[in-house]
Amino acid sequence: MLDEDSDALIRTMAQEARAAATVIARAPSAVKAAALVAAAEAIRADADGILATNAEDMARGRANGLTAALLDRLLLDRERIAAMADGVESVAALRDSVGRIIEETVRPNGLILQRVRVPLGVIAIVYESRPNVTADAGALCFKSGNAAILRGGSEAQASNRAIHAAMARGLVSQGLPAATIQLVPTTDRAAVGALLRAEGLIDMIVPRGGKSLVARVQAEARVPVLAHLDGINHIYVDAAADPAKAMEIVVNAKMRRTGVCGAMETLLIDRAYPDAAALLGALIKSGCEVRGDAAVQALDLRIEPATAADWDTEYLDAIASVAMVDGVEEAIAHIAAHGSHHTDAVLTEDRAVAERFLGEVDSAIVMHNASTQFADGGEFGLGAEIGISTGRLHARGPVALEGLTTYKWLVRGTGQVRP
Amino acid sequence: MLDEDSDALIRTMAQEARAAATVIARAPSAVKAAALVAAAEAIRADADGILATNAEDMARGRANGLTAALLDRLLLDRERIAAMADGVESVAALRDSVGRIIEETVRPNGLILQRVRVPLGVIAIVYESRPNVTADAGALCFKSGNAAILRGGSEAQASNRAIHAAMARGLVSQGLPAATIQLVPTTDRAAVGALLRAEGLIDMIVPRGGKSLVARVQAEARVPVLAHLDGINHIYVDAAADPAKAMEIVVNAKMRRTGVCGAMETLLIDRAYPDAAALLGALIKSGCEVRGDAAVQALDLRIEPATAADWDTEYLDAIASVAMVDGVEEAIAHIAAHGSHHTDAVLTEDRAVAERFLGEVDSAIVMHNASTQFADGGEFGLGAEIGISTGRLHARGPVALEGLTTYKWLVRGTGQVRP
Repeated sequence: MLDEDSDALIRTMAQEARAAATVIARAPSAVKAAALVAAAEAIRADADGILATNAEDMARGRANGLTAALLDRLLLDRERIAAMADGVESVAALRDSVGRIIEETVRPNGLILQRVRVPLGVIAIVYESRPNVTADAGALCFKSGNAAILRGGSEAQASNRAIHAAMARGLVSQGLPAATIQLVPTTDRAAVGALLRAEGLIDMIVPRGGKSLVARVQAEARVPVLAHLDGINHIYVDAAADPAKAMEIVVNAKMRRTGVCGAMETLLIDRAYPDAAALLGALIKSGCEVRGDAAVQALDLRIEPATAADWDTEYLDAIASVAMVDGVEEAIAHIAAHGSHHTDAVLTEDRAVAERFLGEVDSAIVMHNASTQFADGGEFGLGAEIGISTGRLHARGPVALEGLTTYKWLVRGTGQVRP
Repeated sequence: MLDEDSDALIRTMAQEARAAATVIARAPSAVKAAALVAAAEAIRADADGILATNAEDMARGRANGLTAALLDRLLLDRERIAAMADGVESVAALRDSVGRIIEETVRPNGLILQRVRVPLGVIAIVYESRPNVTADAGALCFKSGNAAILRGGSEAQASNRAIHAAMARGLVSQGLPAATIQLVPTTDRAAVGALLRAEGLIDMIVPRGGKSLVARVQAEARVPVLAHLDGINHIYVDAAADPAKAMEIVVNAKMRRTGVCGAMETLLIDRAYPDAAALLGALIKSGCEVRGDAAVQALDLRIEPATAADWDTEYLDAIASVAMVDGVEEAIAHIAAHGSHHTDAVLTEDRAVAERFLGEVDSAIVMHNASTQFADGGEFGLGAEIGISTGRLHARGPVALEGLTTYKWLVRGTGQVRP
């Protein structure tokens, strides 16, 4: 596809999205909720059709030699379709941020100022493989009063189309414009470039996918990006950590699911912690490969040496790098040097150490005595998430409905002029 | 200056800023306030020195043929220096956002979640001519716990250096690192490019200056930008507007100061408004050139025709474009087509019309029965402003201390692991 053709396609879609956005921005919360419930019903009603198209994607994926992991991400079954529809309904039930008054002040001259939440406008989501993102991301944008332009991966194109078509039927049945959620009709890479260049047409772009996708988006985007970079997450086990809690939390943080962005990648152990060998023994026993610095190797657990690159690596696998540190200060310095500002945790029964770590570690999420795998919008009570932001502006950590809004200032006067 | 040299310079400055940022981020509010009071004192104490360096800038400016308006912006006198020092003191007294808990929740599993305001980190300000920005912007970044890298215009370089040196003396006298506020030691344009490319080193860049500066920053920046674009601001005078209020507000909004971003540029008058001729007569009498559409010209006030370009022009001068519209709906449509999402106002005694305008106009600031010239952080009670954002992400409208912060999530557990 030529760049000009892609630009023209995205411009047309963005204009339709903008028109739809002005409608959805003003739709009452109950109307948006009813439309999403109808969309969920439409997904359930078309389960057979969605399964059939997913079978096409799966057959093509197998023919194209997709890995077992990718095929599993692509696969839909009745249970996953039901979960997807339930997810849309749970977004429907979320408390809507739109219209919420953030603050209200009355100035000495009588002007009444309100800062009120409003939708961002038009949001583009670029994602890979998992077809459920079509439903999740579309529902979150919709409930927060935004128009969405979805661009899924080529491997899930048929499934995405079927899910999108079902949702659109649901929305239209409630009198809302189909263009509130659009799916880019081509998986040509040029269309992604056109989205990234669509400054002024698209208000925010959310990449959901692997490193190469996120890197491309960050390098090329002229549109603001809500980006999720690596989760090189640390747990620091302090001298005053409870050994039983430490063992349970470290194994959970690393091994519960190794492929999620909240998984622990590096373990820092205070030299004064008395149970390092038992802790690492448990981690190894759980099936984790441990790569250690010299002090960790000296524990004689047949641990491989960590190279310099290990401290900066997001494994997303059953591997952990482990270093011994001299107390919380060195742990904080290690995290500042090697972390990715995603999620880091301290395990200790010493309140002062915990508060120092919470205060000084500069990450989106900083935890005390809890597993880093809790880094998730659902676990945070946000109901869902469009992603976890490792950027500093606009929204940080799990982003749900509020992160998809902005605000405007309303000023009510009685004829005031400025002296 | 070679790009590589600029990059090296900015990298070194940004690293020093980052180190200073970790100190200032944790400084108690009272310590930051005391340091700013000391900085204000140092400015007052060095008034003679600052005046002498300003005289050098003024002489060079005259020799270089700067316009009278630019020379006035460049000029410092005892009164302006006193106002600058007072401004720094008033920022010192502002309520600090850092550490404020935005929300706190307890999850069913016992995890305690807090969302807490923290500084953004390292902020670069690129500005032109007015030397007082050195003090204002430096103080705002400092009070919000950020390290600032200031890059002023070449025409004010000597004044900026003197003001910066005085402030740095004040900060250092209170035991805070000089690198919390740095001034780029060169006015080479390449240094701006290096700031714009300093992704990962600088957390936000704020351009304060004319259109060409802002356009360059928006086109080149890889660092997030808090940008202020045009203020093509509208006032819509509804059929139900109070004629006396309308006359006073329209003249104030256009003519109080024509060069500020909150000035009205386009006036939209409801065809059903009975006093259009008197309103425009007052505007013309105040010294404003009026350019009208056919209906406005028909009022026979010897009004020049507005061209298509007029509706999209920010004059920043004693000129207004005026159109007749059919009620609030057409006014809203005109603003959607031609506005810049800065500040727009409706004048009416009809509450329903006012609420519709406030709800549907998609601008950072939407006003009812008040002058658009109130679009200002000081007037909004924010104490000061780093700029007025016309972007949608992060901060919108006047940006002061809160807009210079982000947040992080603190999670306190007692050993929880994720099932």
